[in-house]
This record gives sequence, structure tokens and C-alpha cells, in this order.
Amino acid sequence: MNHKTMTLDEKFKALEANNAPGQEIRQNLGDINNIMLGDKLGGAAVDFSHGDVDAFPPTPDSDTAWKKGFRQGGSQAYTEYRGSAEVRNKLAVRLAKFTGRSINANSELIITPGTQGALFLALGASVTVGTKVAVVEPDYFANRKLVKFFGGEVVPIPLNYKGSQLHNSPDLNRIEEAFKNETKVLVFSTPNNPTGLVYSKNTITKIADLAAKYEVTVIVDQLYSRMLYSGEIYTHLRSCNIQPKNLITIMGPSKTESLSGFRLGVAFGTSKLIERMECLQAIVSLRAAGYNQAALDTWFQEPLGWMESRIKEHESIRDELLDIFKTAKLYTASPQAGSYLFPQLPSLSVDLYTFVRLLRYQANVIVTPGSEFDPACKDSIRLNFSQNHSMAVSAANRIVKMVEIYKT
Amino acid sequence: MNHKTMTLDEKFKALEANNAPGQEIRQNLGDINNIMLGDKLGGAAVDFSHGDVDAFPPTPDSDTAWKKGFRQGGSQAYTEYRGSAEVRNKLAVRLAKFTGRSINANSELIITPGTQGALFLALGASVTVGTKVAVVEPDYFANRKLVKFFGGEVVPIPLNYKGSQLHNSPDLNRIEEAFKNETKVLVFSTPNNPTGLVYSKNTITKIADLAAKYEVTVIVDQLYSRMLYSGEIYTHLRSCNIQPKNLITIMGPSKTESLSGFRLGVAFGTSKLIERMECLQAIVSLRAAGYNQAALDTWFQEPLGWMESRIKEHESIRDELLDIFKTAKLYTASPQAGSYLFPQLPSLSVDLYTFVRLLRYQANVIVTPGSEFDPACKDSIRLNFSQNHSMAVSAANRIVKMVEIYKT
Repeated sequence: MNHKTMTLDEKFKALEANNAPGQEIRQNLGDINNIMLGDKLGGAAVDFSHGDVDAFPPTPDSDTAWKKGFRQGGSQAYTEYRGSAEVRNKLAVRLAKFTGRSINANSELIITPGTQGALFLALGASVTVGTKVAVVEPDYFANRKLVKFFGGEVVPIPLNYKGSQLHNSPDLNRIEEAFKNETKVLVFSTPNNPTGLVYSKNTITKIADLAAKYEVTVIVDQLYSRMLYSGEIYTHLRSCNIQPKNLITIMGPSKTESLSGFRLGVAFGTSKLIERMECLQAIVSLRAAGYNQAALDTWFQEPLGWMESRIKEHESIRDELLDIFKTAKLYTASPQAGSYLFPQLPSLSVDLYTFVRLLRYQANVIVTPGSEFDPACKDSIRLNFSQNHSMAVSAANRIVKMVEIYKT
Repeated sequence: MNHKTMTLDEKFKALEANNAPGQEIRQNLGDINNIMLGDKLGGAAVDFSHGDVDAFPPTPDSDTAWKKGFRQGGSQAYTEYRGSAEVRNKLAVRLAKFTGRSINANSELIITPGTQGALFLALGASVTVGTKVAVVEPDYFANRKLVKFFGGEVVPIPLNYKGSQLHNSPDLNRIEEAFKNETKVLVFSTPNNPTGLVYSKNTITKIADLAAKYEVTVIVDQLYSRMLYSGEIYTHLRSCNIQPKNLITIMGPSKTESLSGFRLGVAFGTSKLIERMECLQAIVSLRAAGYNQAALDTWFQEPLGWMESRIKEHESIRDELLDIFKTAKLYTASPQAGSYLFPQLPSLSVDLYTFVRLLRYQANVIVTPGSEFDPACKDSIRLNFSQNHSMAVSAANRIVKMVEIYKT
């Protein structure tokens, strides 16, 4: 074998999912009793690794929509790989309205198994062995893993999220430098996962301009763009005047709308990339589950006031948790959208992974270590605060207590 | 870039899905009116590219099981990436009983988005750039595409399916030759897609022995193994005394049980590979849709007599279609299991793809060209005869009529 490539063991080492959100049950707690200081704190278990769809249930009638799809039978079970034409036709109109640019339902939109599925297909369609990909840090943990899986090379772009909102942004100079140096793809989320930072109009416009100038493919993950807090402004990259030649926008109803159990997402943009994504989907899992696709009929069609009140409830949890962490002097950027908080911890007597395991064992709180989002970030934890309000508050207080116990 | 690898254009050229089953709607019929001889034949449309779940509906209560999963809420929406532990525990027992060897539900089983998802993960876990993979021809079209997508090299193994049942088998000498020459993986389906050939006990035992001897990973797709016709015997590779070090068995309820609209499959076997498959699943689409997983509770738990009568109904369609093709002197292997027929066509005045398009336009019949299963096979078509009985018969007669019109 002449190819200078990773062995399968190396390839899968890079994909290790033990610290990934939702996989905590597979972690070995080890000799945690010997490490633990003091007693268990008690309190009801809160799993901040993902949102609680029991606290914030799925969009009304999403189950009825599923059943309608099931009753429709064969035509809904066996859709095109890119998803039901009927569902795509309706979605294209709504997504175009939301994002500020028209979408051809036939050639520019694909329904995917979750937003994760969309990301996988988009990166699979644009990254191969040796492709340089600019990845923002911190950002969604799978971005980096996907680039490596497809044989690409990660070009890290630092995100400034600890300053004033006016200046928070990925480092635009580093982006231009990367683009000048053969970087072919840029992937990022806005609102940013894990910080909740919404890229400003200035940042988005600059990214679009640079991508157009250097012919870089842009994949923008807008999963949380609907849950926008009071006074914030969201800029869709696809609404900019100057457009990159290749642009894929990714969204889905798994978070704000709590439809994660349906595994639905969409990607829309450059038809050549959508075409490739469908070819890949055909060998990955054929299509998003047919009957589930019918639940997309509830998306952007929620009952009057439903979205507003869902945002309001989250904003109120955000504010209370921010207060708790601020009072405890744990620096936490204020999320402009979405339901993630990314508090920074002081120096502790145990490493981050041990602290996360202790949180789970001693405090009944599950969080995700910051290193999942930026390999160098060993002092922050991510919380998805889409939880029962009072339970989230109580769990946040336990996190503060745990920091007090273990800080040096 | 020093790596000797495919460009993205080349990579996706190999994945083209225009002739794949279910994608016919995206084909351009072109100047078909100028090619067509005679008039349209009329008759109700039959889509033999996949089974008709309206003719053979999903397992009773599969929708009720889904609803139960939906009602269960968060714990069913957010399962481990490898699927709900509760569902896996129950499945492991039933699948072990069916396949003749015990399965550790915690480490040896993963629930996937369809059997396609299982194949993708299994090949992704065992194939990287330069890996030689033995692929039977004809066999399921995605096997070859997946190997190429992961950068592997296809080592074709011819399947003899036109002789007497006693001698039908993949070429075992070619398999051993491949194994001697650095082939690391063997992938095949039994019952074979598209011919319905069930590998004999002798063949299966020999494959297991060779794989053990040469340390070759075996991926065996047993999707249709439950729909076994009268008098036939099925041998599970995982029931052999001598086992390959690495073996993954793949099944799912999409075909016989008509649950394709749920996108569910399973893979079980060597824990190291299952572990890798889960890591890959985590970046591909996280998990099989959570609520859908609950429908697996109906699998291998069908009402008394349900499976027997489903098999009987298919056997009766098989027999009548075989008669029609035999009378017309179109050679067609008699499927021992599953619902595929693979009739061979005589020399025609148009090429295979044109004939398939003509079938669709002139005869209202959709079939899949043989070249999807074996690139060299330009004279056969595949039919999934899981259809309304009388409509299937009428459509088969139209195929015969079309052959008469276009034969040279």
C-alpha cells in the first residue's frame, strides 16, 4: 500500500465517542469513590448533554403527521433518496422565506436523517483525502471528526467569544489566511455550538465575500437559528448579496422543535453538492425514514404563539443560569440564541474528564467536556439548558457547589 | 497533494444513482417517442424496483409500537448511538435463536438506519484506502459502491446461479485465491440479491473456514433470510463451528415485514467492529430514529401464522411469474428465498437502459437493470415481486410482450 493514509485503527481512534453527548452510559466510572471528596449531593438527575423533550415536548401534532404519513403507505415509505417531492415543495417555500433567498425544491434541497445526517453528507460531498477544511474552534464536535474521517486536514480557526458582543467573531484574518493557503471548505455553526454566539452581519458578509473571492465551499449549520433571544439579529449567509459559488445551509427540527426522535434535517443550496449528497445518501441509509418525513409538514407551521412562548421559556432559564454562574464567578458567554451555555471553570484538583465523571456520580448532573468542541479547551463544560426550569436551576447550583469542592 | 486518490468528481461518478431502484423519477426519458415501436401497452403501473408495502402492509401493530415509543418520550428519542438498550436486550435473544449463536446485547449488536445503514457502517468499519474487498457479482448494488467510496479495491467473485441448485455458488476457488492475495474483507448477501440464491451449507461452511484461515473479515447480508420457500434450507454463517475472527451479520425488517418506511436494521457480531460502527454512526446520523426503534418490538414477534402466510403468498407469485418467463423462454433462476427475480433477456434492438426506460414509458413497468448488480451484466433485469399478485402477473406479461417487440 503506497497511499499515505491512516490505518483503520488510527481512523477510528479519531472518532472515539466516549465523551460525546448521550454516550455517558457507556463510560466506566472507574475508581470514582476514591477520588470523590465529601458525600453525594443528591438532587434529581439532570442530563445537560442534550435537551429534554419531556420538558419541552415535540411540536403539537407531529405524531399525527407521522401517522398520516404511515397511512399514506408506499408512496411515503419509498420516497426519492432526497426525500418526498411533496414535502420538499412545501418546505422550499418556507425555508426560502426564512433564509431570504429562493430554493428550487427539485434540485437545491435534500431531506436528511437529522442535521447530523446533513452535515455528514455535506462534508462527504466536499472533502476527500487531503482537502484542507477550515474548522472553527470551539464548534460542534462532529465537524472536526467528519473532516478527519473523510481524510481531510483540519485548519483551525479560533473563535473569539469572551469579549464584547460587538467584537465576538471567528478570526477573520485567520480565515483569509487559510483561504489563501489552499483551504477548500469552511464549516461552522451559527448560533455557535457550544457558546450560543450568533455571527454578526459584518462577520457573515465578510465570510461570504472571502469565500466567493477564494472559491471556498461554505457549509453553515444553522440548527438553532429559530431560537433567537430578545433584541438579537440573525444574518443568513445565503441572504448576502455576494454569494460563494458553493454554499450549503443546514437546518432541522431536532432542537427548538424537539423532533430529535424523528431524525430529520434538511440541507439546501448549490445543486451540484445536493446531487452528490443524494448519491451518498443512497449508500448511507437510502433516505430519512419515509413516514417521519411527513412530520416536516408541522415545521415552520407551528400554532400561533407556540414558537414565541418556547423562546421565552428558554430565555428565562438562560437568564437564571447565567446569574448563578456569574454570581459564582464562572465566566459564561451569554448565548444570543439556542440553548447552550459554556461556563468556564477555575483551576481544579482533578482533570476535566474526572470532574465531568464526578458531576455525574456525585451531583447527578451530566454535562459535556469542552474538549469535545475544541481539543485544547480543558476548562469549560457545555450545558444544553433545554430542561425543566427548576431542575436546571437546581442542577446549575450543584455544578457551582462541585466547583467549590474541587477548586484549587 | 501526494496521495494517489480519486478526486471528488471521480468519487461521485462511481456513486451515480440514476439507475438505482426508486430513483427512476429523476431519469430523463429523452426522445423515447422516436425510439418506441408500436403503441403504449396500457395496464396498471407496477413498480418492481421495490416491494409494494400497500400490497403487503407492515407488520400488524408496528404503528402502535411507534406511538408507544413516541409516548415514552425522551428516553426513546435519545438512545445510545447503537440503539435503545431495552430494545437491544430483547432483540439479541430473538436474533440469537434465529441465527444459532448467542449475542451479547451490550457489545455485539447495533441498531442502524435500515439494513443499508448497517452495510455502510460495516464496510466503513473494515475498509479504508487500499483495502482489497471481495465482492460477489451479481450482488446488491451498494456493496461495490461502498467499497469504492471508502477507497477500497473491488476483487470480483463470480456467482454461478444458472446451473442446478446443487452446484450454484460463488466461485470458491476465486474466493480462496483472493484471500491468498491480501483480500481483507468479503461481503455478500444470502439469499442473494438479485437472484434469490441461498448459499448452501457446504458453501457457507467453506467460506467460514477460508475466512478463519486467512483472517478475512466477513460481512454477510441476510436481509431476506426469513422469507424461505418450501423445502429450502438456510445456513447462517454465524452458526458454523469454525468462525472467522471478524464477522458481521446484517438483517432488518424492511423487506419481508414491510417496515422500510421506518428505516431500521441491525448488525451483530464481533464487538470490535460493532464498536467502530457505533463511532461512525455517531457522525453519520447519530442513531436510527428513536421512536422508530420501538417498532423493532414487533420483529420476530409477529402474530401466529402471519409469516407463514406472507411466505405462501409470495411463493405463489414467484411460481406464476416463473411460469410466465419460462413459457417465454426467458431464463430465470428460481429464487429459493426473498422476492427477487432476475430474468435474462435475449438480444434486443435497443440497449438495456433504453429497454428499461421503454418498459417504464410504454409498458408502465419499472424494473432495475442488471448492471446495477454486476457491471458486466447487460442482459438481465431485476424485479421485486412483492406486489399485488394479479398486477404483478399482468406486468410480467407486458415485459414478455415488450421483449417480443424489441428482440432481434
